Amino acid sequence: MQKTYRVDGMSCGGCSSSVEQAIKAAAPGAEVSVELDGGLVTVSNVDDDALVERAVEDAGFTFVGQV
Amino acid sequence: MQKTYRVDGMSCGGCSSSVEQAIKAAAPGAEVSVELDGGLVTVSNVDDDALVERAVEDAGFTFVGQV
Repeated sequence: MQKTYRVDGMSCGGCSSSVEQAIKAAAPGAEVSVELDGGLVTVSNVDDDALVERAVEDAGFTFVGQV
Repeated sequence: MQKTYRVDGMSCGGCSSSVEQAIKAAAPGAEVSVELDGGLVTVSNVDDDALVERAVEDAGFTFVGQV
């Protein structure tokens, strides 16, 4: 299952890799891709939205919600 | 007590705030400041280097070590 979330605050490739890594650290089986311009983060293999939200927020970005 | 660490991979203000937030999430009493150009992260009120390292790495940046 794949879900896409809006995440604010990513402004360069370092930011996007940070979000990707933070989600993978919280959910080892996750696959994550980031579309930096749109602030979109697509996550596969994670059912728990709250886990994704916490990982994103703990990494210093703003979790807006699922799109 | 204050320690300064070298962290690679931060390339914009979003990155530096990500590192700052990740350390604070892992160590709620921490004070953190980042010098982006030099890749230097100064942390107060955290004794455990390994905790800082894990927070930085989980946020997708490279913990080089104390300077």
